[in-house]
Amino acid sequence: MGRWEPGAGNRLRVAAMELYVEQGFDQTTVAEIADRAGVTARTFFRYFTDKREVLFGGSAELEQRLVQALEAAPADATPIGAITAALDSAADSLGDHRDYARQRHLVIAATPELQERELIKMASLATALAAALRRRGVPDPGAGLAAEAGVAVFRVAFERWVTAPANTPLREVMRDTLGELTALTALG
Amino acid sequence: MGRWEPGAGNRLRVAAMELYVEQGFDQTTVAEIADRAGVTARTFFRYFTDKREVLFGGSAELEQRLVQALEAAPADATPIGAITAALDSAADSLGDHRDYARQRHLVIAATPELQERELIKMASLATALAAALRRRGVPDPGAGLAAEAGVAVFRVAFERWVTAPANTPLREVMRDTLGELTALTALG
Repeated sequence: MGRWEPGAGNRLRVAAMELYVEQGFDQTTVAEIADRAGVTARTFFRYFTDKREVLFGGSAELEQRLVQALEAAPADATPIGAITAALDSAADSLGDHRDYARQRHLVIAATPELQERELIKMASLATALAAALRRRGVPDPGAGLAAEAGVAVFRVAFERWVTAPANTPLREVMRDTLGELTALTALG
Repeated sequence: MGRWEPGAGNRLRVAAMELYVEQGFDQTTVAEIADRAGVTARTFFRYFTDKREVLFGGSAELEQRLVQALEAAPADATPIGAITAALDSAADSLGDHRDYARQRHLVIAATPELQERELIKMASLATALAAALRRRGVPDPGAGLAAEAGVAVFRVAFERWVTAPANTPLREVMRDTLGELTALTALG
């Protein structure tokens, strides 16, 4: 058995999510996760620092991806146009994993500690997007507002997407949600 | 010396804020706060459960005030119109205390634990405003989006207000910021 077992990271992720949904995040131990994935607890800790990281391990990567998409938007894109490019890239990287996203959403909604962690992740994303807009020359308060609006759209669209009966493409739900925000503010 | 000393709560609040700004939140003890306010630590604990509550004790009351203002908005107000009523009431209750607000802002910005607490407070506010909009008959995702947009405007406007060199009325900064959001989304 090598240091990295092929597929063990993914098996652990699937096993953890099943257990979190079945019996709750707080009630689940690393030993149980490892057991269900057919590996040792030691193997678990080669992939994740703790059982929370199974759910949040991809956060930094996602944030980086969104910032890069915003940076790659055409120079003449409006602030919300650049934010839309970031939202599209989020949809592209998350959109194929709706079952996983739905389970994750359920687990987080049921666990205050995880909700806090999710809030911190979203605040970090807003800060990173605002900084990227400022680097494009967008002045404040526009940069901060566009970033906050983008994260609000992301959050609301994501929840719509995972809770809807039909699997509408995430990119479409994001764009619709942004359109709704525009319509709401236009009505004043 | 009675159980409640007249003015002790306020003296403690002022003393705590001075110490948090001077030497940092983490470095300040309840004994020091009580000492500066000229009371005992026991008196401190008659007013506050801990040194964090000095900064967040008014959160539930503020949230309630905003929800009540939203509920009192005319029945034909748009979702953002109702949110504007809530923002106006926030401005009315916070607008006269800019020095305190600025100090509080500095202390929170310097302390990760307090930033997290502030994020939770803002998320709770968004949830409460969205629920109040739903009770007015606003369907989702509009209710959630309008509430998130309102909190984004609140947050950005509040930071503009406390960091600006001139003391522009908070209500005006809130309205301007909402106008900026409308303009940004209209540009798309």
